[in-house]
Amino acid sequence: MDITTLIGSIKSLDAKSQEQARIRQDNLTKPKGSLGRLEDLSIQLAGIYRTAAPKISKKAIFTMAADHGVCAEGVSAYPSEVTAQMVLNFASGGAAISVLGRHVGADVITVDMGVASDMSWPSSIVNKKVRKGTRNMMREPAMTPSEASDAMMHGAELGIEAAEKGYDLIGIGDMGIGNTTAASALTAVFTGRPVAEVTGRGTGLDEDGLQKKIKVIEEVINLRRPDPRRPLDVLQRVGGLEIAGMAGVIIGAASKGVPIVLDGFISSSSALIAAGLAPESKSYMIASHRSVEKGHRAILDYLGLEPILDLRMRLGEGTGAALAMNIIEASCKILNEMATFESAGVSKKDGE
Amino acid sequence: MDITTLIGSIKSLDAKSQEQARIRQDNLTKPKGSLGRLEDLSIQLAGIYRTAAPKISKKAIFTMAADHGVCAEGVSAYPSEVTAQMVLNFASGGAAISVLGRHVGADVITVDMGVASDMSWPSSIVNKKVRKGTRNMMREPAMTPSEASDAMMHGAELGIEAAEKGYDLIGIGDMGIGNTTAASALTAVFTGRPVAEVTGRGTGLDEDGLQKKIKVIEEVINLRRPDPRRPLDVLQRVGGLEIAGMAGVIIGAASKGVPIVLDGFISSSSALIAAGLAPESKSYMIASHRSVEKGHRAILDYLGLEPILDLRMRLGEGTGAALAMNIIEASCKILNEMATFESAGVSKKDGE
Repeated sequence: MDITTLIGSIKSLDAKSQEQARIRQDNLTKPKGSLGRLEDLSIQLAGIYRTAAPKISKKAIFTMAADHGVCAEGVSAYPSEVTAQMVLNFASGGAAISVLGRHVGADVITVDMGVASDMSWPSSIVNKKVRKGTRNMMREPAMTPSEASDAMMHGAELGIEAAEKGYDLIGIGDMGIGNTTAASALTAVFTGRPVAEVTGRGTGLDEDGLQKKIKVIEEVINLRRPDPRRPLDVLQRVGGLEIAGMAGVIIGAASKGVPIVLDGFISSSSALIAAGLAPESKSYMIASHRSVEKGHRAILDYLGLEPILDLRMRLGEGTGAALAMNIIEASCKILNEMATFESAGVSKKDGE
Repeated sequence: MDITTLIGSIKSLDAKSQEQARIRQDNLTKPKGSLGRLEDLSIQLAGIYRTAAPKISKKAIFTMAADHGVCAEGVSAYPSEVTAQMVLNFASGGAAISVLGRHVGADVITVDMGVASDMSWPSSIVNKKVRKGTRNMMREPAMTPSEASDAMMHGAELGIEAAEKGYDLIGIGDMGIGNTTAASALTAVFTGRPVAEVTGRGTGLDEDGLQKKIKVIEEVINLRRPDPRRPLDVLQRVGGLEIAGMAGVIIGAASKGVPIVLDGFISSSSALIAAGLAPESKSYMIASHRSVEKGHRAILDYLGLEPILDLRMRLGEGTGAALAMNIIEASCKILNEMATFESAGVSKKDGE
């Protein structure tokens, strides 16, 4: 299995199923279009699952963790050790994504993609550690080409395995102190916007911290010279191991016909890589929410995705993806379970 | 029991529980404020339930149905008979709210507040019919004062009974062909905005239909001269029976310390009545979503409520309320189930 083969196997959505779903939506006992985004979601899923009656039966969220060498430049309000501590928190079920995963009935699968720790994890943590954190991209590329490609393939394999186990809705989320720095760099490179426009306070930098972070990212881009026409190259130079992993999950899941629910800024930055390599994978993406983190809007605009929720969240981990899953499921149930005008004996609009 | 006593028994939220909930939120393993609206909701609920650990155990949605005499003026795209047909659709579980109620685990309680039909309903429909639809408010007030007050008291009793049965989250939704006309009239009267600014296409009027509807509402307001300082008077002159019922549910539920989840434009117009009579009831309201229907934004701004969802929906029935309930529940679980920095052994932000 290689990434090119996987990319080639991503099908365009099934237009016939989408058309049938649209016709059914228009015959359900409600004014046409009155369920707005719910109707659109159900039609996207009809195209992805290639059936006019899309159903969701098993949900997973991959929460991918890794550390970032660029933290040495003082770009984060929290110390790097928090990444490993939070992995343990995921394992014991006390993190926000643990709570929200249980709430919406999604299995949370925590993956160590590159945590800078020698800790031996509980068995519930999937170990795909490529290396202990990226290198400091102020001094050298964040990863070697083979590290970036390994991390992405690990993610793709996890996406494929999950699909084979019957997961038919896959969310992606992140944990990694310093990863908004990598995500802002990726966003600036792909969208072409100035760094200052796509860089926010992350977990809680003050104004001085923010200005310093912007300068670091500008310098990183100057030094590393990532070329947006070569997404894997960009990933390797200024990305992150968990970002590579999530990009892989997107491509792997899409290759198996499974929709991917993006979380916030970091997971959406991985979508930039996936969409760059595999434009068709965009049709399989669902944007769960709009993060407060400044660059997120730029990514969603660039990818042409409309977020389901806007709850002023900026936590990551997959928390937005979890909340949106309930609404995505609702969209399928509307399509499958509502009565039609005919079956319920309800009169249509005057003149129809 | 009278409405004045009920209004007097609505307590202001418990500030101490809210403060305790805020402190706990700030100690949970996430950057401060990073769950945005979820945190705010949990704190509102702490104040309503008067505990730092708010929990939701049983959810109901009242879907209140009634007809509108003003339909004789041609203000709706659908014929009035649809109201009764949809009540049967609720009873057989085929409507959008039936599907979404099941999806989020909320009991949908359909109430006939004034359907213009002699139909004998299945036993699952609660019969509180005050009269067969309102009068045509182009010719006379929509209701007599006692009809308006009866309808509101029925709603209040239902809200109180539900609270006594253990429902601790109550949504309100509507079904009534013609009711956007009444809701736009109420919105114009209370917010003081021009009719054209708060009147939309309802279930699907074309441009001519919309212009006609605006003229009808302007004339109704000229003829009926409702005084916004007397909310019951406004309700009686230009309101609706289901709107009166929902206003009653708000006051009844709030008097028992139960939060009310508003749906879209129509249920929010009932909130204008409730808030006018009982300003404290506003603290018990949660705005589930922002409807496409034009006047809804004006009501939410006027009441100072921020909607949870914005999914381009405009169906009513309680559909937005149902979807938001899942997020409201999530907010409580975050507060109750997440680990603290201390309990999880996670380092805090540098300098804290």
